Amino acid sequence: MKQFFSVADVADLSNIVDEALRLKSNPFAYEHLGKRKTLGLVFLNPSLRTRLSTQKAAIHLGMDVMVMNMDKDGWALETRDGIAMNGTTVEHIREAAAVMGQYCDILGIRSFPKLEDRDVDYGEDLFRKFIAFCGVPVVSLESATRHPLQSLTDLITIREHWHQPRKPKVVMAWAPHVKALPQAVPNSFAEWMSRAQAEGLMDFTIAHPPGYSLSEQFTQGATMTNLLDEALEGADFVYVKNWSSYEDYGKVQHISESWMLDHAKLALTNQAKVMHCLPVRRDVELASEVLDGPHSLVIQEAGNRVWGAQVVLKRMLEQLLLDK
Amino acid sequence: MKQFFSVADVADLSNIVDEALRLKSNPFAYEHLGKRKTLGLVFLNPSLRTRLSTQKAAIHLGMDVMVMNMDKDGWALETRDGIAMNGTTVEHIREAAAVMGQYCDILGIRSFPKLEDRDVDYGEDLFRKFIAFCGVPVVSLESATRHPLQSLTDLITIREHWHQPRKPKVVMAWAPHVKALPQAVPNSFAEWMSRAQAEGLMDFTIAHPPGYSLSEQFTQGATMTNLLDEALEGADFVYVKNWSSYEDYGKVQHISESWMLDHAKLALTNQAKVMHCLPVRRDVELASEVLDGPHSLVIQEAGNRVWGAQVVLKRMLEQLLLDK
Amino acid sequence: MKQFFSVADVADLSNIVDEALRLKSNPFAYEHLGKRKTLGLVFLNPSLRTRLSTQKAAIHLGMDVMVMNMDKDGWALETRDGIAMNGTTVEHIREAAAVMGQYCDILGIRSFPKLEDRDVDYGEDLFRKFIAFCGVPVVSLESATRHPLQSLTDLITIREHWHQPRKPKVVMAWAPHVKALPQAVPNSFAEWMSRAQAEGLMDFTIAHPPGYSLSEQFTQGATMTNLLDEALEGADFVYVKNWSSYEDYGKVQHISESWMLDHAKLALTNQAKVMHCLPVRRDVELASEVLDGPHSLVIQEAGNRVWGAQVVLKRMLEQLLLDK
Repeated sequence: MKQFFSVADVADLSNIVDEALRLKSNPFAYEHLGKRKTLGLVFLNPSLRTRLSTQKAAIHLGMDVMVMNMDKDGWALETRDGIAMNGTTVEHIREAAAVMGQYCDILGIRSFPKLEDRDVDYGEDLFRKFIAFCGVPVVSLESATRHPLQSLTDLITIREHWHQPRKPKVVMAWAPHVKALPQAVPNSFAEWMSRAQAEGLMDFTIAHPPGYSLSEQFTQGATMTNLLDEALEGADFVYVKNWSSYEDYGKVQHISESWMLDHAKLALTNQAKVMHCLPVRRDVELASEVLDGPHSLVIQEAGNRVWGAQVVLKRMLEQLLLDK
Repeated sequence: MKQFFSVADVADLSNIVDEALRLKSNPFAYEHLGKRKTLGLVFLNPSLRTRLSTQKAAIHLGMDVMVMNMDKDGWALETRDGIAMNGTTVEHIREAAAVMGQYCDILGIRSFPKLEDRDVDYGEDLFRKFIAFCGVPVVSLESATRHPLQSLTDLITIREHWHQPRKPKVVMAWAPHVKALPQAVPNSFAEWMSRAQAEGLMDFTIAHPPGYSLSEQFTQGATMTNLLDEALEGADFVYVKNWSSYEDYGKVQHISESWMLDHAKLALTNQAKVMHCLPVRRDVELASEVLDGPHSLVIQEAGNRVWGAQVVLKRMLEQLLLDK
Repeated sequence: MKQFFSVADVADLSNIVDEALRLKSNPFAYEHLGKRKTLGLVFLNPSLRTRLSTQKAAIHLGMDVMVMNMDKDGWALETRDGIAMNGTTVEHIREAAAVMGQYCDILGIRSFPKLEDRDVDYGEDLFRKFIAFCGVPVVSLESATRHPLQSLTDLITIREHWHQPRKPKVVMAWAPHVKALPQAVPNSFAEWMSRAQAEGLMDFTIAHPPGYSLSEQFTQGATMTNLLDEALEGADFVYVKNWSSYEDYGKVQHISESWMLDHAKLALTNQAKVMHCLPVRRDVELASEVLDGPHSLVIQEAGNRVWGAQVVLKRMLEQLLLDK
């Protein structure tokens, strides 16, 4: 594995999930694999779970970790080509990426969308240029349109909590919020679960209010509905997530409180387990009664971020050995 | 030891001080104890000594350390229950603490008081919830009302610099400052030294101007006076510290420059050693002539922060082994 | 080596460059030298290359690294003596330096000039006091007037890319910029290359517009000119760098775009290699066509920062062993 940006970077979902769960049962089994290798984590935006879980994964593999908060420890990056840098950006991504590649064997980078111009965000310019210029394997720590470490972890968590012979019904349910959030997490969850459905691992449904359709590139094969109650019927897992509009880009079209998952709504499901990538706005996105109840998997899901990150880093380290 | 929040978490002061001094004489004696264990340090406020000394202590014990600056790398935490999170807080302490507990074997957290509402600050809500929800041992890196790593270190420093058979006279002397400071350090020093007095290790006096009484829960048994000169007579150690008013909460009632310790005041003592937790405002809280003179222990005291932290981490690691 | 602040701290340039290149060919050859030793990196200003390359160098040597961002994780430092600290500074350099020296075996510190008062900046007050009070070896991570790790690295890079028996002609060429930059990098490059010229390793020329002379203490023996084209004739290495005026201190006297190195100007040289310390303003300081072409060494130069830092840390660690 030389990059981890989308589900397309993984050949077989079942294999990678199995491998992650084996790492969970024996975290230090590969602690010599990363010896004398350095992971650089570059944050252009805040991070709690991704920051700590990826560090922890690297520690399990024996790697050294260097963290770079570019918005605070560093400076503003330019991504455009063909312009004179006489404004506020201090360094071009071409140099910044190449230089970081000089110091690290693997790099991770987080860069949120601005939610102003859809073509700019969905072009993933910064991310693609970072990959192109740094010269080492790159892990997405969340880009403008995807958060693959989260989605891989979500798949691991679903596998870990499903013990029946039939396929589970997994529902991603839009939820209210007070701010305009990126589509990165729902895009990514949709493309990973659609792929999981195609591989026969689940049935996947997306429920959202009118005006909140995701880009079709992420939702191939998923059942789509605007009726939350109908979607929840027979659900085994409910993945709660807010996102801003893709169509009316970055806008919050309306906030319908009736979309918040609570005990009453949960009663419509098949005793579903409830997931959320966190951070979660209590009693806005998701009722406290659900978060604090026995159906919630949100903490276990966050804990599993370690194994999602670790299996990706392990595969990249193995590739580095092969390439030598 | 499963938490380190106040002096009540330590069974015997002499034992823990002796153990800390043994660690000082052989810092790496337990470097395998923390192998494959991760310490997470969470800062909601700035830190120099606590940050570096606790990292260093963890390194001596072979632990991996992950630092999280929540005010900058992360986001604003909600601590209240039963409210809809539709404001500026992004994540609830319930999730944030539980998630950090997933990634770390021991957690440290620093959270200053706001000095606006005494009941809120003295309720130690954030700290107590953090302990309740994170699921792993927690070390206070300074909370709203206490700074136990500092006070333990102060006791270590006094022991290290006292070689006479009689008990030393230890005086905590209020000092002027230009800002309103928390009572955490003086509260903590008072509760630790009162306990040390009760265990027969010293005589303890607190001197402060009228209006600066500390909460009685911290000062049991201490001699209290508003007369600095009288308190200094025969003092073997003078602990200089400013604090804002507990009674007229968080207010600076007056700034009496006559309370600054200088050579003239030091002459009243028994050649006392002078201590301060740092940072110190030179020639406001404490005269430069004292800080730069042979009576000052402030640098050795800061250096000893390593051993205070290390003995606490060592005991927590040993408890983790027992619990397995 | 007990401090690394200027070229005067190195006895023989050829030796240290050779040693650095040996480290590059075998990075982990001394990985036991720094075992149980802690490097503290103190940043009063942002840093990308220096931060990461110095960490990486320390990792190669087996050291533990603690990073302290004083402008964000810590607080404002006072450097003046004899004043009452009743203003905005929270801690005096005397205490801050001494305390950090308690926790670290070697310290690095970065502190930029304010460019307001030449005597203040060139007095290097903060840096000299930090060295005086911390009590351990100190590496400059860039001070008000010098950036010696950069210049040592530049010399390493020139040596690495020069394979002819004759001495190379090295030209430092002033370049336009949109901001007023310190003289630290050009001062340092000038004092290192002047010394290299004195040791018979190169011929060294400085070209800048009128009004941009550097302080004479850094340029002994260098050929100085205001004619860029003449300087570029026969150049084997061109070191591109902007700086603000030393004479009219900290001012940008004029911005002459004709001083930007592009292909046309490069054609005047002897197929010169082009260097820059980065970050670089594309098409302001240096043409993209040069940066992206085969003559640019800027990425290799940044990569070599590791070996510059590593040879300095290695020598300091060896000195610590001798001093024991």
